[in-house]
Amino acid sequence: MIDTNSIFSECAKRMKRSAIRECLKLTQQPDIISFAGGLPSPTSFPYDEINEIAKEVIENEGAAALQYGTTEGENILRDELVKRYIKEGCNVTRDNFVITTASQQSLDLIGKIFIDEGDYVICELPSYLGGLNSFKIYGAKFIGIEPDEQGMNPDVLEQKILELAKIGKKPKFIYIIPDFQNPAGITMPNQRRKEIIAVAQKYGIYIVEDSPYREIRFEGEPQTMLYALDNQGIVITLGTFSKSFCPGFRLGWIIANQDVLEKFVQAKQTSDLCTSAYLQKIAGHYLQKGYFEKNIGRIVDEYKAKRDNIIRCFKKYFPEGVTWTHPQGGLFLLVTMPEYIDSDDLFYRALEEKVAFVQGYTFFCDGGGRNTFRMNFSFTDEKTAEEGVKRLGDAIRSMMK
Amino acid sequence: MIDTNSIFSECAKRMKRSAIRECLKLTQQPDIISFAGGLPSPTSFPYDEINEIAKEVIENEGAAALQYGTTEGENILRDELVKRYIKEGCNVTRDNFVITTASQQSLDLIGKIFIDEGDYVICELPSYLGGLNSFKIYGAKFIGIEPDEQGMNPDVLEQKILELAKIGKKPKFIYIIPDFQNPAGITMPNQRRKEIIAVAQKYGIYIVEDSPYREIRFEGEPQTMLYALDNQGIVITLGTFSKSFCPGFRLGWIIANQDVLEKFVQAKQTSDLCTSAYLQKIAGHYLQKGYFEKNIGRIVDEYKAKRDNIIRCFKKYFPEGVTWTHPQGGLFLLVTMPEYIDSDDLFYRALEEKVAFVQGYTFFCDGGGRNTFRMNFSFTDEKTAEEGVKRLGDAIRSMMK
Repeated sequence: MIDTNSIFSECAKRMKRSAIRECLKLTQQPDIISFAGGLPSPTSFPYDEINEIAKEVIENEGAAALQYGTTEGENILRDELVKRYIKEGCNVTRDNFVITTASQQSLDLIGKIFIDEGDYVICELPSYLGGLNSFKIYGAKFIGIEPDEQGMNPDVLEQKILELAKIGKKPKFIYIIPDFQNPAGITMPNQRRKEIIAVAQKYGIYIVEDSPYREIRFEGEPQTMLYALDNQGIVITLGTFSKSFCPGFRLGWIIANQDVLEKFVQAKQTSDLCTSAYLQKIAGHYLQKGYFEKNIGRIVDEYKAKRDNIIRCFKKYFPEGVTWTHPQGGLFLLVTMPEYIDSDDLFYRALEEKVAFVQGYTFFCDGGGRNTFRMNFSFTDEKTAEEGVKRLGDAIRSMMK
Repeated sequence: MIDTNSIFSECAKRMKRSAIRECLKLTQQPDIISFAGGLPSPTSFPYDEINEIAKEVIENEGAAALQYGTTEGENILRDELVKRYIKEGCNVTRDNFVITTASQQSLDLIGKIFIDEGDYVICELPSYLGGLNSFKIYGAKFIGIEPDEQGMNPDVLEQKILELAKIGKKPKFIYIIPDFQNPAGITMPNQRRKEIIAVAQKYGIYIVEDSPYREIRFEGEPQTMLYALDNQGIVITLGTFSKSFCPGFRLGWIIANQDVLEKFVQAKQTSDLCTSAYLQKIAGHYLQKGYFEKNIGRIVDEYKAKRDNIIRCFKKYFPEGVTWTHPQGGLFLLVTMPEYIDSDDLFYRALEEKVAFVQGYTFFCDGGGRNTFRMNFSFTDEKTAEEGVKRLGDAIRSMMK
């Protein structure tokens, strides 16, 4: 009786189901080999440690764990995070942190507090779909900057800022994934980080540093966090346990200067009041007991072996003319095919062979990257991955001229 | 360096810290007797059952529990909820449900998908502050309808709808808390429910039925849910475990027709992807094992005794001219003082005596109710409650002419 579509908000009209989330449904069919989602390996989860701590939390502090918590987050968790980020060179206290219901909420809160319809965001080309979608529903327009081998180029960034200034616009923020960028796999070197921050400081523009994979480094030297390199409070950093602990806890955090943090707290109050104190306390003790450090080593070893395996399979099964990235960490590779092959066509061809990935163009705010696709290597075991890559190689070959 | 306030979105500019959330901080000071928050009693939490089930979930289905889940929610939880709501007379399947990160997220999603700046919402006077705030930040304007002893009056509702039509506006939805209304304590009788639905159906307007307290009935006959009385799919119902199980799990749900539900799912995808599968599975088994039914009886007994105790204390310690509601369930009472006493003045007077409540006017979208305040009776034990009411009575008496 009610014409529902006509009464939705402008925000709702901009929403559509996420391609990645729909792909995740495929991963629930047991006969599909999925490289689509960003799923961590179930073998990486610390089952025994969680059971041990969960029991202790209920026994020792159950009344607080099962009650409403503060919007800012549990002290034990924020304090443990402070220790970690101080080691990273960040000048932070508990009051620079708000715990979120994982990174997707952090991204949503950023869209909510910064974006009005028509506001500009500068991002990498490609960039993380879930981030772009969160900004898009609030009405963001994107300026994508194609990376060189070091990531976003500061000269191009400045040029884009000046172009926007000519039409009377200033971007609300610059969205960057500096470590093992999803999906391009690039890690920005320190010098480049400093140059990007210098441009942002010069024009007074916030940088959103999305850092979900930083802990998962296989090789090479860690580069300094943007938050640690900035001395003017213009960097807002997002962290999460989804890749380094478990996504089922839905725990992330935002680090920011206290003015902006206060607004994030207000925004979170109306978004979901607070994040589960029970899960925050478990995670806090997990860090405090040193389990996080111990387990992250195991995850790094497992994922490095899986990355090496999948690249070995690419070499073995992919036809000539197909290339791929070689990230120093993280969970993803980006594969590039000859320009005339559309990853949408490959997607449906591969689905017939019971293999799934994510089409690369979903990560390109300018609709480019149609001959690319993203492969997750953390979820699938090595033998299954080999079979999947073999089928994919056959599918690509069948589409080559 | 960056003038942060100037770059916040319109949505962010409408946000401010919630009065209730700030009051909750007071409850963390051990020497304050707080009737402010809507905190359930820590004695109502099923500690042993949670430990038992949490262990089983990790052992039997840990890989799925700690992984990303679907946005719609875990099947076991949705299926158990379907059983409960079918018993309530609702015509629902799993596909009418999306699990949310508790009711506050449900309210936020409603604001997000329905409200553009300047849209109207019809609500009760008073109404739940957390709901009103969620709609307000998206730019909602409110038409508050003063209740009679049966709640919202259908004739007044129709009149308000017609008045809006004269200025070319149609309300996006009617926000109603039909059971043990927060904070007015009124339960809407069946006949009135039918009349309200008839008006909403006549004009094609959604009703949001916020139902967080329904399970906590001390006496009297349960009235039929609005969702069950509606045959046109115009009712959207919100449920939560925060009062009937534990708020620390942050679990709630939205029930709606499938068109609207699809939009809620899209909105939740960008809001936080999914709610913790671990907690959903624990809650699902908690229902499946019959623990929920068993424990809710214990909660009802405890809260009824606490309500009776606090009303006994009101009679004993409050001066003449002070009245209060007598709700058949839920967690709250609304106290009304002589018109010349402002609850803000009482609030600071009471704080000196180490007692806290929530000023009634925060629940009135028209700024009324200044001589009222809301008392939570679920959290404080009976002896402490008596001491708190005694101090409050003295504070009120000191302000009487």
